[in-house]
Amino acid sequence: MNKPKHAPMTQFSSHEGELVSGGQPISRIAARVGSTPFYLYDRSIMTRKVAELRRYFPDSLHLHYAIKANSMPAVVNHMAAITDGLDVASVAEMHVALDTGIPAELISFAGPGKTREELRSAIAAGVIINVESPLELDRIIHISEALSIKALVALRVNPDFELKSSGMRMGGGAKPFGIDAEQIPALIKSIPSNLVTFKGFHIFSGSQNLKPESIIEAQTKTLELAYRLAEGVENDITWLNIGGGLGIPYFPGEQPLELETIATNLEQQLAICKNKLPNAQVVMELGRYLVGEAGLYIAEVTDIKESRGETFVITNGGLHHHLSASGNFGQVIRKNYPVCVANKMEADTLHKVSVVGPLCTPLDIIADKLELAPLEIGDLIAVYQSGAYGFTASPRDFLSQPQPKQILI
Amino acid sequence: MNKPKHAPMTQFSSHEGELVSGGQPISRIAARVGSTPFYLYDRSIMTRKVAELRRYFPDSLHLHYAIKANSMPAVVNHMAAITDGLDVASVAEMHVALDTGIPAELISFAGPGKTREELRSAIAAGVIINVESPLELDRIIHISEALSIKALVALRVNPDFELKSSGMRMGGGAKPFGIDAEQIPALIKSIPSNLVTFKGFHIFSGSQNLKPESIIEAQTKTLELAYRLAEGVENDITWLNIGGGLGIPYFPGEQPLELETIATNLEQQLAICKNKLPNAQVVMELGRYLVGEAGLYIAEVTDIKESRGETFVITNGGLHHHLSASGNFGQVIRKNYPVCVANKMEADTLHKVSVVGPLCTPLDIIADKLELAPLEIGDLIAVYQSGAYGFTASPRDFLSQPQPKQILI
Repeated sequence: MNKPKHAPMTQFSSHEGELVSGGQPISRIAARVGSTPFYLYDRSIMTRKVAELRRYFPDSLHLHYAIKANSMPAVVNHMAAITDGLDVASVAEMHVALDTGIPAELISFAGPGKTREELRSAIAAGVIINVESPLELDRIIHISEALSIKALVALRVNPDFELKSSGMRMGGGAKPFGIDAEQIPALIKSIPSNLVTFKGFHIFSGSQNLKPESIIEAQTKTLELAYRLAEGVENDITWLNIGGGLGIPYFPGEQPLELETIATNLEQQLAICKNKLPNAQVVMELGRYLVGEAGLYIAEVTDIKESRGETFVITNGGLHHHLSASGNFGQVIRKNYPVCVANKMEADTLHKVSVVGPLCTPLDIIADKLELAPLEIGDLIAVYQSGAYGFTASPRDFLSQPQPKQILI
Repeated sequence: MNKPKHAPMTQFSSHEGELVSGGQPISRIAARVGSTPFYLYDRSIMTRKVAELRRYFPDSLHLHYAIKANSMPAVVNHMAAITDGLDVASVAEMHVALDTGIPAELISFAGPGKTREELRSAIAAGVIINVESPLELDRIIHISEALSIKALVALRVNPDFELKSSGMRMGGGAKPFGIDAEQIPALIKSIPSNLVTFKGFHIFSGSQNLKPESIIEAQTKTLELAYRLAEGVENDITWLNIGGGLGIPYFPGEQPLELETIATNLEQQLAICKNKLPNAQVVMELGRYLVGEAGLYIAEVTDIKESRGETFVITNGGLHHHLSASGNFGQVIRKNYPVCVANKMEADTLHKVSVVGPLCTPLDIIADKLELAPLEIGDLIAVYQSGAYGFTASPRDFLSQPQPKQILI
C-alpha cells in the first residue's frame, strides 16, 4: 500500500532552485523583510483564486471575503478590490473592513454574544448584522430606536441539516451559532420594520469541505431552507448569505476541490432562487479558500542535530507563530502540512528529517519525519497553505519568543 | 459506574456566594479591573505552594520558578522573592528575570536553536546557559572569546530513560531537546575551561506528572545518570537542574499530587548526591505547579440561548484567551477544565449548560455540558487552574476580539 502524499503545491513557481513570489527569489524577499520568521502572502495567487471562481460560478453570485481568515490590512484591501464585499467577526475586523472604503452595506458582521457596545458600533457603521439570538435582536431594536438609525439585520439560521464531511460543522443539531430554523418564522414576524430593516438570512453549515457532492447537497438544502423560511415574506428577502465551505488540501491524500459540478448545481439553484426570492442577492462567503494557498510561513534553520539515529532541524519558527501547522489546533492526530526548503527547490537527493521550533515543548513540530532537501544552517523552510488562520490564530507571545513579520507581495 | 468528577477546587475561598481573592469578592475585583474577561492571579496561593514544598522537601534543594508558565512581570517579581532562582526560555523572558534584580547566576536559560544574538545577550548578562547541541556549545565558546566573558554553561542532557505517565515527555529516545546522554562525556572534555565555565547538567524528563512513583523513579534515575556523566569531573559539577514534572489536577478523575513519598525519596537521593557530587547545588525547576492553581480566567455571560433542547451560555471570553481550557492545546480528546459561577458559589440547584465563547468556530468551548448554577446575563464564569500557560499560550489576536487583562492580587 502506498503512503498517501501531499498534493503537489503548484501555486508558487521556482527559478534556479529558489521559490519565487512577485518575480523575486525567496532569498531576496527574506532580505527585504529583514528578519525571519515571516509570513509571505502573494496577492497574485489571491487574484487567481477569485478569477477562477468567477469563471466557474454564475455571474449573479456575489463573492465575499471573510476577514477572519487573514485580517492583515494590506490583504483585506486587496480582497476588497477584487471581491463583492467583506464579512467580519468582530468590531476590530469591522473597522479594517470599513477602512478599505467599500460601502458599509457590503459588509456583514457575524458572531455569537455580540455586546451592546459592539452592536451600537455596527448599527452606527451601517453594516449588515447577522443576528445570532432572540436577545441580540431585542438589543438591536432598542439601540436602533435610541440612535434613530435603522439597523440592517439578517437572521443567522442554525439549519435543520448538517454538512457532511466538513472540517468543521457549524450548523445542524444543537449549536451555539445562529437561531434554530424552527424559531425563525415567528422571529421574522416580530421584527418592527419601522425600527430595523430585515435583509434576509445567513445560513452556514460548515467549512473546509473537500467533497463536491457534500457542498452541492449543502447549497441545495440551504436554498430550500431559505425558501421555506421566507414563506410569506419572499419580497423582503434582499440578501442571502449561503456561507462558503470550500476547502483546500492540507494533508497527505487530500486533493484540490473540483469546481465543475458545484458550479453546474449553483447555476441551476440560482435560477430557481431568482424565481422564488426575486429580490435576493445571493452571497457566498469565503475566507480560507481565497487566501489560504496564497501564504507561506518562512522560518530559518538555526541548528541541526542528531539524536539516537534521527536528524532534528531546529528553526527560529514554530507553533507560537503557526499553531495549526504544528498540529495543535483542531487536529486530533497530527499530520504534516506541505513543507519545502524554499532556497533548495531542485535538490537531487532527499533526507528524512524532523523540523522543529525553538520552544521547550514536544508540541513544537513543523514537520515530523519528512523527506527534504539536504539542510544547512541558514536555509529557509517554507510551510505551504499558510495564508489563512496562521498569524492571528497562533499564541505569538508563548515563551516570549520574537514575533514574526508579515509581507504582502 | 460513576462518572469521574473534578477534584474539589479549594484554593479560593468564598463569602456570601462570591469567590474571594485577597479578601475581596469577585464582583469588586471585576469592577477594579474595569472590564471582562480577565486573568486573576492570587499571590497568596503561590506563596502557599512554595511554602508547602519547602515544608516537605529537603532544605538543601533549591526551588526555581520557570517563567514560561506565567511571564507577567508582577508574577515573576513575586516568584523571584519566594524562590531560589528563575528559569527562562527566551531572551525576552531573561530580561523579565533580570529586571527582578536577582543575581544573574541564579537564572538559567534553556531552549533549542538559540541564535548567536540570543547567546550573546545571555553571555553578556551572565546567566547559566543550558546548552542544547554541540553547535550551540561551539557558538558559546566563540562568543565568550570575542566578548572576553566566561560563559556559564550547563549541558542539557537527553536522558537514556523516559518519565512514565508524563503529560509531556521531554526526554528519552530521539528528541530535539538537549544532547543525548551518550555524547555528553566527550563533550565535557572538549570544553575549554579558560573560555567558559562548566557548571553541570540540566536533565529534564517530562512535565505535568501526577504519579508519585513515576516522579520518584525519574528523580532517582536523573541523579544516577548525573553521577555516570560526571565520572572524572565530580568536583566540577556545581549545578544540577533535575527539572520539575510535578503536575496539578485539571480534568475529571485527576487528584492532587501526594508529596510525602516524593519528599522521602528526595531526602535519600540528596544525601547520596552530597557524597557523589559534593559541590553540586541541586535545583528543581517548577512552573505550572507553583502558579497554575493560583490563577482564574474570568469571563462574563453576554447571551443565553436554547438550541434544540440544549442551553448555550455565550461569554465574552473563549479560546482566543485561554486555548488550553478550550481543549485545543495538547489534548487529544477534549475534557472540561474545572469551572464555576464565581458570583453564585452557593447555588441550591444546578443546570446542565454548555459555556462557549464569542468566536465563529465550534472549537470555542469553555465548558461542554457541565452542571452549573442558574445563569443570567452579567454572571461571571471562572475557569480554575488558569495561572499557567493561559494568557501567553493563547492566540489572542484570533478574530481580532478584545484582549483580556491580567491582575495579580
